[in-house]
Amino acid sequence: MTIQKICILGAGTLGSRVAIQSAISGYEVSVYDIHEEALDFGFKTMKKILAQLEKGQLLKEPQEKILSRIYFTTAPEKAIQDADFVNESVTEDVEIKKKVWKQFGEIAPQKTIFTTNTSYLLPSMFAEESGRPEKFCAFHFHDVFYSRIVDTMPHPGTEPELIPLLEELGRKLNQVPILVKKENPGYIFNTMLLALIGAAGKLLTGEVGSVEDIDRSWMVNFHMPMGPFGILDSIGLDTAWHVTKNRKDSASQAFAALLKTYIDAGKLGEKTGEGFYKYPHPAYKAPNFIK
Amino acid sequence: MTIQKICILGAGTLGSRVAIQSAISGYEVSVYDIHEEALDFGFKTMKKILAQLEKGQLLKEPQEKILSRIYFTTAPEKAIQDADFVNESVTEDVEIKKKVWKQFGEIAPQKTIFTTNTSYLLPSMFAEESGRPEKFCAFHFHDVFYSRIVDTMPHPGTEPELIPLLEELGRKLNQVPILVKKENPGYIFNTMLLALIGAAGKLLTGEVGSVEDIDRSWMVNFHMPMGPFGILDSIGLDTAWHVTKNRKDSASQAFAALLKTYIDAGKLGEKTGEGFYKYPHPAYKAPNFIK
Ligand SMILES: NC(=O)c1ccc[n+]([C@@H]2O[C@H](COP(=O)([O-])OP(=O)(O)OC[C@H]3O[C@@H](n4cnc5c(N)ncnc54)[C@H](O)[C@@H]3O)[C@@H](O)[C@H]2O)c1
Ligand SMILES: NC(=O)c1ccc[n+]([C@@H]2O[C@H](COP(=O)([O-])OP(=O)(O)OC[C@H]3O[C@@H](n4cnc5c(N)ncnc54)[C@H](O)[C@@H]3O)[C@@H](O)[C@H]2O)c1
Repeated sequence: MTIQKICILGAGTLGSRVAIQSAISGYEVSVYDIHEEALDFGFKTMKKILAQLEKGQLLKEPQEKILSRIYFTTAPEKAIQDADFVNESVTEDVEIKKKVWKQFGEIAPQKTIFTTNTSYLLPSMFAEESGRPEKFCAFHFHDVFYSRIVDTMPHPGTEPELIPLLEELGRKLNQVPILVKKENPGYIFNTMLLALIGAAGKLLTGEVGSVEDIDRSWMVNFHMPMGPFGILDSIGLDTAWHVTKNRKDSASQAFAALLKTYIDAGKLGEKTGEGFYKYPHPAYKAPNFIK
Repeated sequence: MTIQKICILGAGTLGSRVAIQSAISGYEVSVYDIHEEALDFGFKTMKKILAQLEKGQLLKEPQEKILSRIYFTTAPEKAIQDADFVNESVTEDVEIKKKVWKQFGEIAPQKTIFTTNTSYLLPSMFAEESGRPEKFCAFHFHDVFYSRIVDTMPHPGTEPELIPLLEELGRKLNQVPILVKKENPGYIFNTMLLALIGAAGKLLTGEVGSVEDIDRSWMVNFHMPMGPFGILDSIGLDTAWHVTKNRKDSASQAFAALLKTYIDAGKLGEKTGEGFYKYPHPAYKAPNFIK
């Protein structure tokens, strides 16, 4: 089968990004959200992204032409009409995802392939609700433009024929397809990133090094623009805390407790203006940080 | 005190690099090794490094002038004469290090500061042998030129006054000083790197992803020239195996067992022409690796 029409469920941060890339790649796109204002947010986000891409001379078509392929709606039947492929980016909550998949499983055309963009849940947690678990798979983007990988992660009931089809679609969406052969929370990249962050957290709570020295070690040796604590600030300390607190080893527990003191003080990272560093001019970006 | 004369023990890979940087920074340097041929290796290594730096226009003085500050010797007394500071880079073996520190502790001037460049041992394992544990500290370089951090890691008996002095010396040697506040095997960077590599190993032995997809995830998302398995090939699978096999959790044991099959097949990484990839043209460097 060839995919022509893509339906995006959820017009938040990630849904908007996947939708606009789909339109850039030439697909017809419908964007559904339960909230009218979310569609508005999505539309504005997409226009910002298009403006940036145009500035970087990365667009092959006029912005209006690209936008004209996108249809925004709060009506589920309109959104799903004729869709070959769905990518769901609704709120990261298993009950919400179950509800949405039950709803769309009932009204989607026979042919439609179902995918979820969940970051930390597993597709098997809500594949059954869709009524077609064999056509259900995780298809997980990172940020679509700067971090261009897309994870294809089947659950045990996914039919194998789906995989090459999704990998091919990933390439068309300008992503590098990564096959996650079996269900794994955090896929591949986040599993490694969390291991790095966990080690950094243990060095900090164990009073082996300071936030700055831990970041400097990583930045200088790998010539990277930020270290683990700068990365944590950009991910959000709340997100990191949710994942860390579920790990039972004492180092994770100690680090989760430390993260909680930041969260309680309203320091969630870049988005609140402060986390391990202060924004918009964090110390790690200062020229004398590495001296 | 001001450091004027630096004594390097061991003229291998790291000793040569620390020695040549010391001379570049204007210090008088003595280089001691037990083997005459090692001194020869060291001299050649230094000349190669100088030639590269000159090519990059990174030298402020003629090569001969820099080399003229270095004195090569197999005579311990000559090496240690007038030395303000020693950095020991002999073979990574606790018995050898104990022997060397006992030997040099007996003949060094009163003023001399003692440091070890050990990668995975701890300074407390042989500080006593030197006869002056209070003047003994780990001062650990990475590769001196590409990875420019130097870890200052005291053991419980190191006198606190030593720390700022070593950090200052680190800066003069063109390094970014990192304070490792208490003894920690692998310091800060290697602790994080091993966590990353351990996570990658677990994803591989758990059959979640392929070597290539694991590396791709890291490379694309962080815009890095290699992923964990490329890094492993450059570190050497034997080195990684030595560290991994000592960890008791089942994931580390499974990964150590996998590394051992490579080692038994003579695949130690870049240095033997093959590890997870084949050299000199590993797949991860090919333009189509990230497609
Ligand atoms: N933010 C990231 O960096 C990132 C990266 C990869 C994947 N993800 C995943 O993408 C999904 C969405 O994340 P986000 O950051 O875009 O969240 P977000 O909060 O920005 O967007 C979620 C959207 O879902 C909508 N929504 C809630 N309930 C709904 C329902 N019943 N029907 C339709 N829409 C509904 C909300 O109105 C909102 O617009 C999550 O599963 C998340 O794990 C996020
Ligand atoms: N190779 C690295 O990337 C790296 C990085 C940081 C630190 N280190 C540390 O530096 C030290 C040296 O490592 P290397 O890679 O240079 O090893 P190497 O094998 O290249 O060099 C070791 C040198 O020590 C000499 N030696 C052995 N016994 C001696 C003795 N009794 N007296 C004097 N010299 C003696 C050997 O002849 C040899 O020249 C180790 O402790 C290692 O952990 C290595």
